[in-house]
Amino acid sequence: MDKIPVGVLGATGMVGQKFVELLLSHPWFEIVALGASDRSVGKRYADAMRWLMPTALPQQIADMQVVPCIPDLPCNVVFSAMDSSVAGEIEENFALAGYHVVSNSSNHRMDPSVPLMIPEVNADHLELIKKQRFDRGSIVTNPNCSVIGITLALKPLADLWGAQSVNVVTLQALSGAGYPGIPSLDIVDNVIPFISGEEEKVEREPLKILGKYHDGKVIACPIDVSAQCTRVCVADGHLACVSVKLKKEAEMSEIIAAWNRFQAEPQRLKLPTAPKRPIIYLEDERYPQPKLHRALEGGMAISIGRLRRCSLLDWKFIVLSHNTVRGAAGCAVLNAELMAKQGYFSSSRENRFCSYLMT
Amino acid sequence: MDKIPVGVLGATGMVGQKFVELLLSHPWFEIVALGASDRSVGKRYADAMRWLMPTALPQQIADMQVVPCIPDLPCNVVFSAMDSSVAGEIEENFALAGYHVVSNSSNHRMDPSVPLMIPEVNADHLELIKKQRFDRGSIVTNPNCSVIGITLALKPLADLWGAQSVNVVTLQALSGAGYPGIPSLDIVDNVIPFISGEEEKVEREPLKILGKYHDGKVIACPIDVSAQCTRVCVADGHLACVSVKLKKEAEMSEIIAAWNRFQAEPQRLKLPTAPKRPIIYLEDERYPQPKLHRALEGGMAISIGRLRRCSLLDWKFIVLSHNTVRGAAGCAVLNAELMAKQGYFSSSRENRFCSYLMT
Amino acid sequence: MDKIPVGVLGATGMVGQKFVELLLSHPWFEIVALGASDRSVGKRYADAMRWLMPTALPQQIADMQVVPCIPDLPCNVVFSAMDSSVAGEIEENFALAGYHVVSNSSNHRMDPSVPLMIPEVNADHLELIKKQRFDRGSIVTNPNCSVIGITLALKPLADLWGAQSVNVVTLQALSGAGYPGIPSLDIVDNVIPFISGEEEKVEREPLKILGKYHDGKVIACPIDVSAQCTRVCVADGHLACVSVKLKKEAEMSEIIAAWNRFQAEPQRLKLPTAPKRPIIYLEDERYPQPKLHRALEGGMAISIGRLRRCSLLDWKFIVLSHNTVRGAAGCAVLNAELMAKQGYFSSSRENRFCSYLMT
Amino acid sequence: MDKIPVGVLGATGMVGQKFVELLLSHPWFEIVALGASDRSVGKRYADAMRWLMPTALPQQIADMQVVPCIPDLPCNVVFSAMDSSVAGEIEENFALAGYHVVSNSSNHRMDPSVPLMIPEVNADHLELIKKQRFDRGSIVTNPNCSVIGITLALKPLADLWGAQSVNVVTLQALSGAGYPGIPSLDIVDNVIPFISGEEEKVEREPLKILGKYHDGKVIACPIDVSAQCTRVCVADGHLACVSVKLKKEAEMSEIIAAWNRFQAEPQRLKLPTAPKRPIIYLEDERYPQPKLHRALEGGMAISIGRLRRCSLLDWKFIVLSHNTVRGAAGCAVLNAELMAKQGYFSSSRENRFCSYLMT
Repeated sequence: MDKIPVGVLGATGMVGQKFVELLLSHPWFEIVALGASDRSVGKRYADAMRWLMPTALPQQIADMQVVPCIPDLPCNVVFSAMDSSVAGEIEENFALAGYHVVSNSSNHRMDPSVPLMIPEVNADHLELIKKQRFDRGSIVTNPNCSVIGITLALKPLADLWGAQSVNVVTLQALSGAGYPGIPSLDIVDNVIPFISGEEEKVEREPLKILGKYHDGKVIACPIDVSAQCTRVCVADGHLACVSVKLKKEAEMSEIIAAWNRFQAEPQRLKLPTAPKRPIIYLEDERYPQPKLHRALEGGMAISIGRLRRCSLLDWKFIVLSHNTVRGAAGCAVLNAELMAKQGYFSSSRENRFCSYLMT
Repeated sequence: MDKIPVGVLGATGMVGQKFVELLLSHPWFEIVALGASDRSVGKRYADAMRWLMPTALPQQIADMQVVPCIPDLPCNVVFSAMDSSVAGEIEENFALAGYHVVSNSSNHRMDPSVPLMIPEVNADHLELIKKQRFDRGSIVTNPNCSVIGITLALKPLADLWGAQSVNVVTLQALSGAGYPGIPSLDIVDNVIPFISGEEEKVEREPLKILGKYHDGKVIACPIDVSAQCTRVCVADGHLACVSVKLKKEAEMSEIIAAWNRFQAEPQRLKLPTAPKRPIIYLEDERYPQPKLHRALEGGMAISIGRLRRCSLLDWKFIVLSHNTVRGAAGCAVLNAELMAKQGYFSSSRENRFCSYLMT
Repeated sequence: MDKIPVGVLGATGMVGQKFVELLLSHPWFEIVALGASDRSVGKRYADAMRWLMPTALPQQIADMQVVPCIPDLPCNVVFSAMDSSVAGEIEENFALAGYHVVSNSSNHRMDPSVPLMIPEVNADHLELIKKQRFDRGSIVTNPNCSVIGITLALKPLADLWGAQSVNVVTLQALSGAGYPGIPSLDIVDNVIPFISGEEEKVEREPLKILGKYHDGKVIACPIDVSAQCTRVCVADGHLACVSVKLKKEAEMSEIIAAWNRFQAEPQRLKLPTAPKRPIIYLEDERYPQPKLHRALEGGMAISIGRLRRCSLLDWKFIVLSHNTVRGAAGCAVLNAELMAKQGYFSSSRENRFCSYLMT
Repeated sequence: MDKIPVGVLGATGMVGQKFVELLLSHPWFEIVALGASDRSVGKRYADAMRWLMPTALPQQIADMQVVPCIPDLPCNVVFSAMDSSVAGEIEENFALAGYHVVSNSSNHRMDPSVPLMIPEVNADHLELIKKQRFDRGSIVTNPNCSVIGITLALKPLADLWGAQSVNVVTLQALSGAGYPGIPSLDIVDNVIPFISGEEEKVEREPLKILGKYHDGKVIACPIDVSAQCTRVCVADGHLACVSVKLKKEAEMSEIIAAWNRFQAEPQRLKLPTAPKRPIIYLEDERYPQPKLHRALEGGMAISIGRLRRCSLLDWKFIVLSHNTVRGAAGCAVLNAELMAKQGYFSSSRENRFCSYLMT
């Protein structure tokens, strides 16, 4: 089988690099273009950024010349890790030109016709694409890095007992702020109890993701979410202290079982990046911990611990997710895999026709 | 004026050292005895522990010989920083022998006749002492290090609008776990989302502190507190993300004003360790931060920031307090200053009579 | 081929866990016994320690019962990661009982008949074993964790130009102190410029390792080494700032080439744990860095950077090695692989006869 | 006595803020102008930067309007903390216009007629000013932040036994790179073994500082210094591992005594910022440590530990100095105090006449 050629827009940033890393040995996708801002265009990729991933950068990718983010790339699928200050317009340009844009940027997440998708949670929202105003192209987004872990944890609860209200306090990792991001003088021996725009996203995005798709629209789920977001001195791995009020009475053992046995579309379709177990409950009361558990299932599984009764809402627990893998690039790649498997990428775009059969 | 001779029990630990540091140049108290466990007894104080305070240890204190924690000390006031595994019985022995025990240990905090006191919050609870079964001695305690900051922040709200329920997530400092405490391999690039026994204290102690003293008893305040406690890689300074439901409607500006103008007994009495402003509201949305604000007013002021509406409860905000100063030794010293000022220490104990006039 | 059964002594510590991790999927060796101190004996391995390795612990190993460190194990090869306070006698007992002891402990390193071996440097020292007083057993050691990286870096220089004197300042990782090891309060926002006994080892061990084997003895190499050792806030990866005086004039490009093309016995024998390139020179003047390069070749390659002239000695450079892999357990496993390949393990020990053919 | 009005150029950076902090309550100097780059000009000082000092910024200074760095300030003494990319020309402009420029910038340090001064080491170099080509103004510099600690430690050795060659490896703090400086992702769990231009300064500047002033010139001291400079995850406090070869034989106790009793011009003149003991030798073999000892004598004393024989050179030891106080702003303020005391500032500059008597 020929691989599907893909581009990465915003390839030099933290999430862009993670996209590149995840795609390096991907069985279905092959990087054919690395796009970035004017500052980087024309440089070798290796010279255009400081490679911060643990995987060694292969010579072939290192030598690729960075191109501008204009819809003139030899592929019809692009992953977007662009800064939200520019992503909005560029992504539209690409979609209008017939590209499928699989984006991690926040700009289009709340557009009514754009799926805000975690494949394990709301794969059916992909149907929204058909309402998009782009001829052959599309835009699909994944949620904010903190939202993905929390929403994945809530999904089985929402399905089985109904989720009514949620309180979240996050302890977020440095890589979530990109590179250079947080100055060391600001965070060594410190906590910054504020992340611009983050609480709004955590309070808003889960409602759309957990919403019901019906007749071309997503009806937001009426959950009340209140969030406080902090930055801590951890390289990778967002931790969230969650309390939740359910609509029906649940037993502790039932909830844990619901998490541990949770499987969804990506697992059934055996998508390459899908974790075998998307949710892993850890019995040790000191867990989950970023350093120990962020890399479970290659960073695609979230881990949960310390489920216990809450006197205010009903239940309290701790969720951990790898913010640049499960919470960003990994989720987008999984979105793309779902689209590929479901035939979304087999359309033609001018003379760049391609028809893929995923096996 | 002669200074009041005092002893420090558990003088070699983290909080014990902070007691020593705060008492080094205290205008009213003078260290005459340093008590510790058998391992340290007989050694020079400087040899019995690793001095971790930023203040240099004066030669005179460094050379003091550590004594056993038995009620045979040349003073009638002792500060207790002993481990809770031994503090219970030893503190009782001292109180029975006529000593005033001003304790940071948790053992007697919930005893009905023992004041659990933050002088700015419930100075009137000191009356409880009169119900204690000790002839001339007494036991007075201060709350858990996380509880002090949170409860001080709640006090003006509870007074003016009534506090109904509180959700707290703490991000606690390393010094809260004592020394050697948390191994570096466990916390560098990590968060530990569990502190043994801590959530129970945070959920229980504020009810007593905010309770009403009436006729020899404290009637617990019916607040519902739910807590999640985590350990982060910060040397000093506990941060708490608080949400609170009030009984009456309040305006944001009113709440901020209530905090900023808050003054209580220690300020009115001008106690030496009392901060001029016990609560400081910081307008910058990135504040408070442990590294920047833990030392305000010598570590005795708490700082609050980011007051905003909460969709679940009514209000959300961030509280910071220095856990070994305001949250431990400093609060105990303030308790002792209040007792001294109110004449509690002017009783005799056998031949160790003393009568103090505080100026 | 049947795997060679092996035991791990001191299996619960930091290096012990690394041994277990490296042996989990080893093609030649199979763990059949996990030995530790009385405190752990009888417990499940998973309950006897806190597993700190990034690899998940397989159920089968987790469930193994920890046994005492006495020579009654169903194998004739044991890896020793015991504390030096007990390792000396126990290792001898095992060797006397006919076991091959492959040790990371310091006790026997300087024994004249015990090889102190880095397989890439002095594989021929293995001959020393024949002079050991043990009937069928043996003791083979690997050097101190700082020494391995430095000595490996010096080897090609010593071979080609002769090394006369060496100045070393190390910046060592936390895992080098074991677990719980360094308290977080001692190292966050700090450096500890002292590691007990370390400088002596760094000044002594390279002389034996780089020494010449001749007629049953190792004649120490007359290099003058001076060391200063510090502890920094890094989880894994020892960095060393080295200056060296050579006996003959060298060119910068020659030295770099000598490092990059360095190959030795383990590479020629294609031992399973041997790195393809034991020494990797990095051209970027900011490299090597612990976080970025400690895991090169699975942690078995050292990386070097910043070679430049020194006005005092001749050359200066930076060396990085993974202290628990290349610098401890990984080196020992490589020692054992060399011994296995060369037939040292094919002897019988009572009724535990085994004859191995490595492929 | 009226205070001497002074300006701070480059007032918004890390060292600029430290200047402001040190001058806030200075008995002789009073800040009358805060200069910075165009980006800041016209803003309130508090709005032009992020105040990172532990001392609270007084309202009066916070409200000062930032002015351009042109020689039109209401004072005739300016402290310069400007970036070296612009400091060279601006400082000359000020000196030409009759200002005394007391600079921490590197641009003019090696100019033959510019004193590179640590007041405890080479106060007599101030004579060089007389050879400067400026009419009434002058430029005086202090050394690089790493150089100050090392050179101060060497001074008593050079005086008593002669220093022949020195090897230095530094472990430098984050604040040395300014703000925002080092990204947290680069230094948490890491070391960066390279600081641009630093080794050259460490190898060059001590020769001038320890040089002899004679007849309008400084004859460089013929010491051979070789340096390796690294950045570690410490907020403040540069540590240096030093080896030194002396010209004459010394005893360990003599060296320690020489350090401990070291006093120089600033101590004799009782300059306000002069530490009582510029050099403090710590007997504990684990000391000095940045976190524990950087603030000794308000950050103006250096601390030394671990003196021991070196097999290559003669002696090895560890030096710690606070890089933004002793190593930057504090040294410059001390330079200015020396100049004030010696009457250098009592000249007139046009209509800005002032005559100061220091008491």
